[in-house]
Amino acid sequence: MDDLLSRLSENLPPEALITDPDVTVSYSNDMASFCDAGTPAVVVLPRTVEQVQHVMRTATELRVPVVPQGARTGLSGAANASDGCIVLSLVKMDRILEISPVDRIAVVEPGVVNAVLSRAVGEHGLYYPPDPSSWEMCTIGGNIGTASGGLCCVKYGVTAEYVLGLEVVLADGRLLSTGRRTAKGVAGYDLTRLFVGSEGSLGIVVKAVLALRPKPPRQLVLAAEFPSAATACDAVCAIMERGHTPSLLEIMDRTTIRAVNEMAQMGLPDTTEALLLAAFDTPDPGPDLAAVGELCAAAGATQVVPAEDAAESELLLQARRLSLTALEAVKTATMIDDVCVPRSQLAAMLDGTAAIAEKYDLTIGVCAHAGDGNTHPVVCFDHHDPGESARARESFDEIMALGLELGGTITGEHGVGVLKKEWLARELGPVGVELQQGIKKTFDPLGILNPGKLF
Amino acid sequence: MDDLLSRLSENLPPEALITDPDVTVSYSNDMASFCDAGTPAVVVLPRTVEQVQHVMRTATELRVPVVPQGARTGLSGAANASDGCIVLSLVKMDRILEISPVDRIAVVEPGVVNAVLSRAVGEHGLYYPPDPSSWEMCTIGGNIGTASGGLCCVKYGVTAEYVLGLEVVLADGRLLSTGRRTAKGVAGYDLTRLFVGSEGSLGIVVKAVLALRPKPPRQLVLAAEFPSAATACDAVCAIMERGHTPSLLEIMDRTTIRAVNEMAQMGLPDTTEALLLAAFDTPDPGPDLAAVGELCAAAGATQVVPAEDAAESELLLQARRLSLTALEAVKTATMIDDVCVPRSQLAAMLDGTAAIAEKYDLTIGVCAHAGDGNTHPVVCFDHHDPGESARARESFDEIMALGLELGGTITGEHGVGVLKKEWLARELGPVGVELQQGIKKTFDPLGILNPGKLF
Repeated sequence: MDDLLSRLSENLPPEALITDPDVTVSYSNDMASFCDAGTPAVVVLPRTVEQVQHVMRTATELRVPVVPQGARTGLSGAANASDGCIVLSLVKMDRILEISPVDRIAVVEPGVVNAVLSRAVGEHGLYYPPDPSSWEMCTIGGNIGTASGGLCCVKYGVTAEYVLGLEVVLADGRLLSTGRRTAKGVAGYDLTRLFVGSEGSLGIVVKAVLALRPKPPRQLVLAAEFPSAATACDAVCAIMERGHTPSLLEIMDRTTIRAVNEMAQMGLPDTTEALLLAAFDTPDPGPDLAAVGELCAAAGATQVVPAEDAAESELLLQARRLSLTALEAVKTATMIDDVCVPRSQLAAMLDGTAAIAEKYDLTIGVCAHAGDGNTHPVVCFDHHDPGESARARESFDEIMALGLELGGTITGEHGVGVLKKEWLARELGPVGVELQQGIKKTFDPLGILNPGKLF
Repeated sequence: MDDLLSRLSENLPPEALITDPDVTVSYSNDMASFCDAGTPAVVVLPRTVEQVQHVMRTATELRVPVVPQGARTGLSGAANASDGCIVLSLVKMDRILEISPVDRIAVVEPGVVNAVLSRAVGEHGLYYPPDPSSWEMCTIGGNIGTASGGLCCVKYGVTAEYVLGLEVVLADGRLLSTGRRTAKGVAGYDLTRLFVGSEGSLGIVVKAVLALRPKPPRQLVLAAEFPSAATACDAVCAIMERGHTPSLLEIMDRTTIRAVNEMAQMGLPDTTEALLLAAFDTPDPGPDLAAVGELCAAAGATQVVPAEDAAESELLLQARRLSLTALEAVKTATMIDDVCVPRSQLAAMLDGTAAIAEKYDLTIGVCAHAGDGNTHPVVCFDHHDPGESARARESFDEIMALGLELGGTITGEHGVGVLKKEWLARELGPVGVELQQGIKKTFDPLGILNPGKLF
């Protein structure tokens, strides 16, 4: 331990090293519940690539595990410390190095906050789509590590699709460049993509070249009330089958709507079983919104309410963005699931989740990126009640099992981390696991990068 | 050899095995010039996954190299046989297994021809964007192996962005499933993406889940004539900087225009230095086309000619699609380059290529996916003339060096294969090469999969 600190301080200024246990403990975990977290030996806050390289060389030399962190807004425990580790927080490396409207790229350090980047590129008429709920806090490095999604994915895809190239400090401190600054490029295996979603287990991202898009018009939202989750899902399928390209297509169930109203008095229609939000960000969204309204009505919607203007649309989006936070206030604790199924199985997923809630006598609110088939069942429970806590964990697992049965994945956008590690092997199968472990070993032969996560 | 054939025939019907040297020789190479190709021991044409597994088990047991092939329309020699290898042609595995309009996916075998899939999904109102020039012949498996692009990429991206999941027979015959059928999914490292562009060096793709999009309206094309390549590139930059999203943005230089006219009497304006084609496939392309026309004029266009209708647009596209073939007829041989640079460097790339042509006293025609910065300088030469052939090779290399200098890549969409293998290390650097070799070893420890390509 003394050796570690003295070696680290050789090339790091004192303010980059935190050893006060009262402070370091606050770096021990992200926002996931029910995930083990250890006590870090030290928290390092580097400002340069060279400092990151020094940390990794030291860690390799002394065989100390390193846990990279962004803003710790993750929901799977992927950023949780292990005992005696170096927490490597990248939040001070927060410079936007370049924004090029002609090349439609931004070059950033990993600690740049998602919303800061979004606003900065917006000033150039550009758009960085990935928008996780935590976008005002979460960092681009964290987004890359967890392969974050958001509300925009149904039209614009996930973080992975916006990462063109990376600079990465490897476990042994060497610097790797992957990918490109160009729109296309196929030279060799796609290492860039391998790092996206790797939860810091393959290397430390210290720079990223991100693809940007032209800024679309502000989206106009339509809300539709349904008598059941299944009918709302039917509307989702009809909308996608008819070839619409909404910029957002979300479902909130009754539990979620009530929770949001409870928290923010937003006046959502809380007698309805499911609320569908659909939006378009095209220059002329009118015809699409009208057609979607008709499809909703045909699927059984009891009310179809188009937002009058951008401000009303923004209010509906805020309600949706509040969902997880609001559900967290229903009881003393939550477990947030992230099962993604083929869109055609969405109704089966939501009905199945309701049946699981009933079976375990639990409140499970569901909000979903419905257009992507990506559901977030939120299991609400009293963590002081051991029986209820145990049932919560069981129901959480049963939801994942249901997702796999329906041809889905255990994680659409939150990642595996500690929370779903045991489930990963079920999804990947033994051959997949073996190859993934082989990749891990190629990049991190000593196993010092975020040990205990993923593989 | 006898041993190999007898082992193979244990689980393969006679018609799946070709050993007649007069026939097998026709499988020895793809469409790249100047690439070594060996003589296969046998060509195998499996129809089932089990047959592919049998081939790979046999190859592993006997340590025989396997070269997977699609339609052999590739332009980098990635499908070229090595001496004594098993050529594993996947063209008979050509079933479209599923098309789902609700999930917007298709599930296909690797031998499905790109255009066949495009037309099949079109009947469901869907669209599979990747459209390499060879789309009437090339297979989806080949597209995945080479990570193909096409004319649509400026708006719709490359093959990689449409591959959601794969089934792959590994070197030892085991079956691996990667990825998903869902719109999103982040469980583990992205092995799917690793296979895209891997040129058959990591495993044999036997099934693919592909993402589809709603079929857009037919695109309307505008043609603009420019007094220089540089002014045409200025227009490209202006169009992208202003936030337009063309469905196609192509440049043909004077040499290319003349070659196309020569071949097909298309009446292209062959006194102009560069022809820019821009298209939009939105419901109302008029305002975009008008704005782009103005940007072209401002950049110095001498003529701006919007296509009157879809038929006229199609004619212009045909001219562009003919470019490579037409340039091939200029002299007895060609070397087709595929350098992609940041869009902002496109003018420097084209002017630099012209300077290289002059330096080496060669005809080099350039057509380019200009919106992506992806240029195809085509070096035309007489292969009976050793001096000219040598200069062709030198100029080809110098074009790649220029691309790298300008922050680009040696290959935007054609792949590395044999043609650019020596150049790959220059682009990736020693650390990158070492990790890529590590990945190759993880998947193919005996090195029997397409040896001599990539790594």
